Amino acid sequence: MTTATTEPGAADFRAWMGEVQARMEAALARALPPAHVAPARLHEAMRYAVLEGGKRVRPLLAFAAGEVSGAPAERLARAAAAIELIHAYSLVHDDMPCMDDDVLRRGKPTVHVEYDEATALLVGDALQSAAFQILAEPGLADDPAVQLDMVRTLAAAAGSRGMAGGQQLDLQATGRELELAELEFMHIHKTGALIRAAVALGYACGPTRGAADRERLERYAAAVGLAFQVVDDILDHEASTATLGKTAGKDAEQGKATYVTLLGAARARSLAEELRAQARGALEGLGAPARRLAELADYIVLRKF
Amino acid sequence: MTTATTEPGAADFRAWMGEVQARMEAALARALPPAHVAPARLHEAMRYAVLEGGKRVRPLLAFAAGEVSGAPAERLARAAAAIELIHAYSLVHDDMPCMDDDVLRRGKPTVHVEYDEATALLVGDALQSAAFQILAEPGLADDPAVQLDMVRTLAAAAGSRGMAGGQQLDLQATGRELELAELEFMHIHKTGALIRAAVALGYACGPTRGAADRERLERYAAAVGLAFQVVDDILDHEASTATLGKTAGKDAEQGKATYVTLLGAARARSLAEELRAQARGALEGLGAPARRLAELADYIVLRKF
Repeated sequence: MTTATTEPGAADFRAWMGEVQARMEAALARALPPAHVAPARLHEAMRYAVLEGGKRVRPLLAFAAGEVSGAPAERLARAAAAIELIHAYSLVHDDMPCMDDDVLRRGKPTVHVEYDEATALLVGDALQSAAFQILAEPGLADDPAVQLDMVRTLAAAAGSRGMAGGQQLDLQATGRELELAELEFMHIHKTGALIRAAVALGYACGPTRGAADRERLERYAAAVGLAFQVVDDILDHEASTATLGKTAGKDAEQGKATYVTLLGAARARSLAEELRAQARGALEGLGAPARRLAELADYIVLRKF
Repeated sequence: MTTATTEPGAADFRAWMGEVQARMEAALARALPPAHVAPARLHEAMRYAVLEGGKRVRPLLAFAAGEVSGAPAERLARAAAAIELIHAYSLVHDDMPCMDDDVLRRGKPTVHVEYDEATALLVGDALQSAAFQILAEPGLADDPAVQLDMVRTLAAAAGSRGMAGGQQLDLQATGRELELAELEFMHIHKTGALIRAAVALGYACGPTRGAADRERLERYAAAVGLAFQVVDDILDHEASTATLGKTAGKDAEQGKATYVTLLGAARARSLAEELRAQARGALEGLGAPARRLAELADYIVLRKF
């Protein structure tokens, strides 16, 4: 098995990734109200929750999907910022004492630890609003009707039949024996929905779109979304807290089913490999513009943290 | 001073209000996922939080503003449902132990009491997403660009420079002496922003729009929004828990400044009257279509619960 760093073009991929990440940092910094604007404590905490953190996997997927439809980078940065704000809000709420009760995230104290619980609650709430606010600012698509559909797509992905619903399934699963099908159903909602939305929104930002390509990207996103979670479970099982930047081994400790507890590490690893092949397979017929998507499938499965 | 019930047309106004409220109940029931759809516990709790509750003041304002622009009732019901879902989410989160820690809302146990804290957190999160999802479904305005602007307006009103920001200011104000100007600044955000959005969105649903009328409605909404809060403080001061359907006298008990603690009941009552006159004054020039808005200003100031 080859790893991402030994593949041809890996250096070029890393450079692209770094570029997108830098562009995202700037877009997110612009999307959030300045820390000195009232209420300053809330704005400061929102920036603390979002900036200087994370691999920006969803934005990377949005940018890569945008290459397939010829989307301008400025649009992609805004759409991706909306998605990342939804992701960031979910982490803030997920870390709260009534949920996972985590004290460490991306190597820093979680928002409710650094600030307080009430502020963390409001930070998450306000980040969700901010996501829809920037997604609805004019100019993200040539046709406002397409942009309206992007809003609807992100809202559905974030909501009770998407990410928030997945969180609820996760809650209900704690301390209970879970079947593999149930675990998959939960992850398709909890992390999968937003990853699929990232690919769909990035693609929607561009002018060159068609139903067949959209269908390919949906299959790609479904496979990558699940692969992402399988690998997360493997890394959580293997890694130390220092490497992950969040509390490691917590899921197993809380009696939560993971791909590793259900399948064992070796079979979980082959499942991730299989999903990577599925994701790459879905891209066939898209040609050169799908290169970054293929590289991201490799990156997501072969990453070490 | 006359009261709403003795004014001419009061019976007609009550009938209109009842019609809008019934229409809203149906629209909200349709907007929320059925209680049997997975995750069933979350969907059941979302319906518990939203249905059969509240006076639907914001929807009433949206419908009344829609009369000025000739908006169809079907559009108004959807736009108003989005606004009411935002309002409902804010109540669920506001009642949580880390915020106001309230056990009673609309005469029923609050969501975190009836279910649990984690579910209450997710209910609020998912209600916010649901609001933007229905607001982005096609057909709310003739021009999708106008509808996109409605999304942006609601998101801004809900976010850190609107309602959520007001909540943060409220948190920071607890147990501290507040100036009248600070109290007003907080309420302009906490309750005012969403009330202004309700009027703006209702108006935007109709075909007959113009900048001068929009400006009149903005002045109306600003006055009504503040009046609403002043009267809330008066009622909280006067009423018993049984009449209010929520824990009475709690603000003063928590050392929170209110219009009554700052001005006394009599001066708070004249301020409310003054704001009612301002609201009615702003409607001059709009003619007969503004009748419901005028009646609502009366209702909001003269209500007994």
